[in-house]
Amino acid sequence: MTRVHENTIAELAARLRSGAVSAAELARRTLDAVAGRNAELGAFAAVDAEGAREAARRADAELAAGVDRGPLHGVPVAVKDNIDVAGLPVTRGSAHFAGRVAERDAECVRRLRTAGAVIVGTTTMHEVAYGPTGDRSVHGPARNPRDPARMSGGSSGGAAVAVAAGLVPLAVGTDTGGSVRIPAALCGVAGFKPAFGALPTGGVFPLAATLDHVGLIAGTAADCLLAYRALVPLPGPPRRETPARIGWAEPGPGLPIARPVAALARRALLGQDVTGVELPALDELHRDFAAVQSSEAYAVHADRVAGRPELFDPEVLDRLKGAAAMPGWRYVRALAARDGHRARFDDLFARFDLLALPTVGITAPPLDTRQVEIDGVTVPVRDTLLALTSPWNLTGLPALTVPAGTLDGLPVGLQLVCPPGREHMLFAVADLLRPAALEGTLDA
Amino acid sequence: MTRVHENTIAELAARLRSGAVSAAELARRTLDAVAGRNAELGAFAAVDAEGAREAARRADAELAAGVDRGPLHGVPVAVKDNIDVAGLPVTRGSAHFAGRVAERDAECVRRLRTAGAVIVGTTTMHEVAYGPTGDRSVHGPARNPRDPARMSGGSSGGAAVAVAAGLVPLAVGTDTGGSVRIPAALCGVAGFKPAFGALPTGGVFPLAATLDHVGLIAGTAADCLLAYRALVPLPGPPRRETPARIGWAEPGPGLPIARPVAALARRALLGQDVTGVELPALDELHRDFAAVQSSEAYAVHADRVAGRPELFDPEVLDRLKGAAAMPGWRYVRALAARDGHRARFDDLFARFDLLALPTVGITAPPLDTRQVEIDGVTVPVRDTLLALTSPWNLTGLPALTVPAGTLDGLPVGLQLVCPPGREHMLFAVADLLRPAALEGTLDA
Repeated sequence: MTRVHENTIAELAARLRSGAVSAAELARRTLDAVAGRNAELGAFAAVDAEGAREAARRADAELAAGVDRGPLHGVPVAVKDNIDVAGLPVTRGSAHFAGRVAERDAECVRRLRTAGAVIVGTTTMHEVAYGPTGDRSVHGPARNPRDPARMSGGSSGGAAVAVAAGLVPLAVGTDTGGSVRIPAALCGVAGFKPAFGALPTGGVFPLAATLDHVGLIAGTAADCLLAYRALVPLPGPPRRETPARIGWAEPGPGLPIARPVAALARRALLGQDVTGVELPALDELHRDFAAVQSSEAYAVHADRVAGRPELFDPEVLDRLKGAAAMPGWRYVRALAARDGHRARFDDLFARFDLLALPTVGITAPPLDTRQVEIDGVTVPVRDTLLALTSPWNLTGLPALTVPAGTLDGLPVGLQLVCPPGREHMLFAVADLLRPAALEGTLDA
Repeated sequence: MTRVHENTIAELAARLRSGAVSAAELARRTLDAVAGRNAELGAFAAVDAEGAREAARRADAELAAGVDRGPLHGVPVAVKDNIDVAGLPVTRGSAHFAGRVAERDAECVRRLRTAGAVIVGTTTMHEVAYGPTGDRSVHGPARNPRDPARMSGGSSGGAAVAVAAGLVPLAVGTDTGGSVRIPAALCGVAGFKPAFGALPTGGVFPLAATLDHVGLIAGTAADCLLAYRALVPLPGPPRRETPARIGWAEPGPGLPIARPVAALARRALLGQDVTGVELPALDELHRDFAAVQSSEAYAVHADRVAGRPELFDPEVLDRLKGAAAMPGWRYVRALAARDGHRARFDDLFARFDLLALPTVGITAPPLDTRQVEIDGVTVPVRDTLLALTSPWNLTGLPALTVPAGTLDGLPVGLQLVCPPGREHMLFAVADLLRPAALEGTLDA
């Protein structure tokens, strides 16, 4: 079956306005494609066919009447299962919330509707968003479109799968330690985690309140930017600074990256102004991230663990029980350390416009894999998936993953990080990337 | 030996300006009295005789030259051993800091000096301020002037003893769960914990950063107010609201108060507009206080516990080890609950101008006592001492203890609590109190 959405959002917007396609037609194609492929992919948790058709009809009527809500007007969008959409089941991938129907729209959903987007349904996710593999959910695993026997990554697995499979051109996810960027990278699409708080989390089920971000997944970085601008007013016109000075994170402790992955990601930056740099205090950063995430996550779930533990997936339950043991004093120290972590990166951002590194140090492993080898060393999958993305949650810095190419057909993401206010440079640099397809190198 | 300072600060200020006494003479009397009585009382950790004489000389010279710094000008003041005084040993009552000399003044000390106060030395304290009994310190126990075999209360034990024994008319302490108010109450003087942050904690060694307050101990509530006004600019003239509507905390769960103590404290309010009220959610408040204090305190001391545990007093070390086990998720929940606790009291403050309750539910036990009986039930001393004061640290509300009289010669404190901005009413009500001396009633 072919991809429904080969067009970028900008192209769709042009076609909607030229009459080459209608919102109703886009909605119909999307719903047909989801009906045809979801059993194979596990991308959607719930589909709102009637709501999507109705929203599409309204979008067409408005455009016909000269009411133009901007580039998302009439565009099908999917929303992760932990973001409230009024009237839809929103169950956080968890049996604890089976049958729960959201009463009102989350703030980001409200903005989507105001921007004219057509919400087609909710996407599957790692249970309660507490896992980067995307293969533990009451809805079953999200499957990588490049190879459905492989994991999508998570926790916004279904969102990335839905975009990567061309079922929708845009999906909204959440990212507490990498949950937008990891599946986007493993599935070969673009994912943007804005600065902390830039997209409001109102109506989003928390994983860890001071780390939670709402983020966007689309086929290209340009589509992420277009959608972000439709939802968040960006300040002023971007300064022109060409070329961007890019600090490339040199491999080192705390950066588990397979050599071919690093090489491919680095290669995508060829022709740009790149200087190697050592990321500061990564071990402390990972330790502090764990202290914050564990403490805040267990605070969300303590009563469910005490009351109905059997409703959790066993692996998620084990992780929660581990989180329960995180001492309070470590959380206090981690909170106090955040300013210092941020200051160290601010020092780097005095020398570099952006930092660049792989999004994930490996390509998508098979479903249920929990140990992988990196350059001959066996490492746990979870820590490996999170290692390169979680620093930007603790520091709240904007981070974008863009396809850097493929290794043996499996996608590799390049991650670009900037201080708030410099987001336009992320996207400008992303436009200059040179993805490549390499074969037979991952196990070299 | 007679009390050195029988005068209120206001009276001292008048006598200094009339020439009836000089700052130098006040300093000399103070130093003589400390030299004579400190071995018995354990009030001072360090005395700065030369510095005090020099500051007094300067104060006299300024007054003679017409430079008048206000009511603290030339007044001897003592400062708790966890508040930095440049050039003095400031050792937090702990062997860990033996030999430590402060490099610069804490902000509250800077303000004292600007107000012309004569700093005579540092007062003993419960080790690292982590205890309300005042009898665990590298400097030995602070002893209650009413009966040196009894505890002063803590942690600002020496400060309260110094004032209660008439060695100084004013002392500056800290209060994280009651550490100003508890010893003030048990020693029979006044103690004021301002609103959170009203007196800056810069240069003060932390116990638990979001609970720590700098506070004042003086012979009377009026002297506390006078000193507070000298250090913190108070907004506008007080509204006149006479009589104040006072909510009296009815005994109940979470309020361990011996009946005669409650009766004496209540009796001090005779003639005022008092209505019984139940304090809301005290059990939750105590639980959340413990979560915050434990987590934040252990974050301060984790490295010392790991590195040189033998330098701690064994009881303090045990308490720290207990604090290490407080889970992070409980701290997260406690922080999230603080607004709710505060809101419940704000509801009460819509009906009442002030809340009133005993400061401590018992009178001073003998040194080293760890269990007491309240109305036939054995309870731990520490929890009992903290139960009525710690709620106002978690909520950050201003709280004042004033002498309500004595039971068998031992002081009882009445505590008045208000929302920020209503401090003038605390002090106005305190001026109307009727302390009484009752005999033979505590064990009745």
